[in-house]
Amino acid sequence: MAAPGDVGADLSAPPPVDAETLEHFVGRVLRAVGLPDGDADKVARLIVTADLQGADGHGVFRLPQYVRRIRAGGINVRPRIQVVRQSGATALVDGDNGMGHLAVSFAAERAIEIATETGIAWVGVRRGNHAGPASLYAAMPVEQDQIGIYFAIGNANHLAPWGGVEPLLSTNPIAIAVPAGECPPVVLDMATSVVSFGTIKSYAKRNEPMPPGWMIDKHGEPLLDPTRADEGLLLPLGGYKGYGLSLMITFLAGVLNGAAFGRDVVDFNHDDVTPTNTGQAIAAIDIAHFREPGSFKAAVDEFVTELARSRTLPNVRAVRVPGERTHRTFKQRSREGIPLSAALRSELDELAGSLGLERLPAA
Amino acid sequence: MAAPGDVGADLSAPPPVDAETLEHFVGRVLRAVGLPDGDADKVARLIVTADLQGADGHGVFRLPQYVRRIRAGGINVRPRIQVVRQSGATALVDGDNGMGHLAVSFAAERAIEIATETGIAWVGVRRGNHAGPASLYAAMPVEQDQIGIYFAIGNANHLAPWGGVEPLLSTNPIAIAVPAGECPPVVLDMATSVVSFGTIKSYAKRNEPMPPGWMIDKHGEPLLDPTRADEGLLLPLGGYKGYGLSLMITFLAGVLNGAAFGRDVVDFNHDDVTPTNTGQAIAAIDIAHFREPGSFKAAVDEFVTELARSRTLPNVRAVRVPGERTHRTFKQRSREGIPLSAALRSELDELAGSLGLERLPAA
Repeated sequence: MAAPGDVGADLSAPPPVDAETLEHFVGRVLRAVGLPDGDADKVARLIVTADLQGADGHGVFRLPQYVRRIRAGGINVRPRIQVVRQSGATALVDGDNGMGHLAVSFAAERAIEIATETGIAWVGVRRGNHAGPASLYAAMPVEQDQIGIYFAIGNANHLAPWGGVEPLLSTNPIAIAVPAGECPPVVLDMATSVVSFGTIKSYAKRNEPMPPGWMIDKHGEPLLDPTRADEGLLLPLGGYKGYGLSLMITFLAGVLNGAAFGRDVVDFNHDDVTPTNTGQAIAAIDIAHFREPGSFKAAVDEFVTELARSRTLPNVRAVRVPGERTHRTFKQRSREGIPLSAALRSELDELAGSLGLERLPAA
Repeated sequence: MAAPGDVGADLSAPPPVDAETLEHFVGRVLRAVGLPDGDADKVARLIVTADLQGADGHGVFRLPQYVRRIRAGGINVRPRIQVVRQSGATALVDGDNGMGHLAVSFAAERAIEIATETGIAWVGVRRGNHAGPASLYAAMPVEQDQIGIYFAIGNANHLAPWGGVEPLLSTNPIAIAVPAGECPPVVLDMATSVVSFGTIKSYAKRNEPMPPGWMIDKHGEPLLDPTRADEGLLLPLGGYKGYGLSLMITFLAGVLNGAAFGRDVVDFNHDDVTPTNTGQAIAAIDIAHFREPGSFKAAVDEFVTELARSRTLPNVRAVRVPGERTHRTFKQRSREGIPLSAALRSELDELAGSLGLERLPAA
């Protein structure tokens, strides 16, 4: 029950950057590499929201990689994102190989709109790209008293099928967001592997051995050295169950949309050029079509409170629900700014320099 | 990767019963306790399908419990199952406290019908009851080239929230079924706990200690003695992730439908009288609204084949996909009959006797 995303008092770290400043900076960078104003602003807002929520591996941390990919021609900066198929309650969105954030937020907006009429909507995306943390999109319907459910194909195959040793699956995340009344929304955002590849990268950075059960090597032996992660395979959450979920997300977000799956998934960490044809899917359920939203949200509050007050294991202070930490981090960082490591800071300075842009201000 | 449901050659076991004979027997029993002919036949077919698929803990094994509950007045044998709310792509079904199989199959039929028009449908159930294995219902849309997704609130709280020691959640299952072409459909059916309570019951029957990681006692200590399972708590699949999934299913299948959740969940193993107000939800996605179903199913076949041919861990013969074993068991049992243990057989004989009905024929 530790909170690895909580911000410690690292005195060597640069002072945190306020969200607005960071958002303007990201927007300037994206404009400089060719995104139209509106798109640059939208992507910047989503990237910085990820940072505000503590999804550090999915926010501004990714900007240098996005820019590298854009410069290599791997992302279309002027995409024509559109609905290519539509029926009563579904839509299929073609992301035209633009920034993933644009295609998926477009899809989420369509889903919310449709679900308001029909009670449920399901919108798939093909020819998208990496779009940041899953919870960003699952949470969008919540403002409209809707439940959001989001599935995505990850952008690198690090997962073997259960019993296998070939990386044929990604850590395909699932996110579900449920509106509450007084309590923050309940937001689950989980990879279908035991841990995410990002967690392993941070172990590598700290040169800390991984616990057994996270990764295996190609012979099925436990892999504990995080610097050798590229030779290894992530283990699925709960064995065959996590494998089953990852496989189902392959069908729901990949195959159904005509997006890449299996061996066709492009490892976007090692290939800046090939279009990823990333698939995502978002569903929105409009609560009013089932019961009065106020009573639904009161019942969610009631259960969250009951969980929080329930008896705990000896070393646990309180039972928490998914999304609580994210919500707390969001409030804290909105107030105090977003901490950026010295390494990331200097990467961003370099990026600004290479584009002839002003750096992030010092404090 | 063992196949615990595979039928061994237990020479002391009674000979297997053919499905048709068993179905007629179950139908007669249900009629004898008051179900109308059509309902009795429908429930009998679903119960025996569960047995054919190898879901031994959810088939005819449950019949004595269902009958006990019906006799105690805990189930309405003449329910008026109806849609109480409807919109473009959703419906809310009231099960009127009838047999769960009736309400959920009614909901699945509605979902299939709606999704054919709208591309996606979501149908919730309230005032239902235990309905057998989740995969039964998730698989219903598959025949119509639709993907099925099913969530249910379990009928006893055996799961604590992550970090907690109070049984506030059930093992809330999720099932997803995806049509394939030449290959059998891919069908995932999983509890959100590490193992199901049924598995633990079968350990208790064999007096075999459980491995650590399955259950804890109320102090958080590993519980290994399966005969003490009632004092313990099941652990969620993959720690907080399984807890998160179980919680989300509480919202999707319970709270949204106005069905029971949290402390209001009735333990149907110890209470035959109180209406359970069980909640379920089924979604159907019509593939033709996204792409040509033939090409979708060919892509599923292709991936399943690729997985099956991929390299395996040293002691694994082949990578399998969810639903393969069920499919094989179904074919085998359709041919060779359904094995019933001597204990279950004599329970069914007793049940028949108490209702003045003919026993299951000897072979």
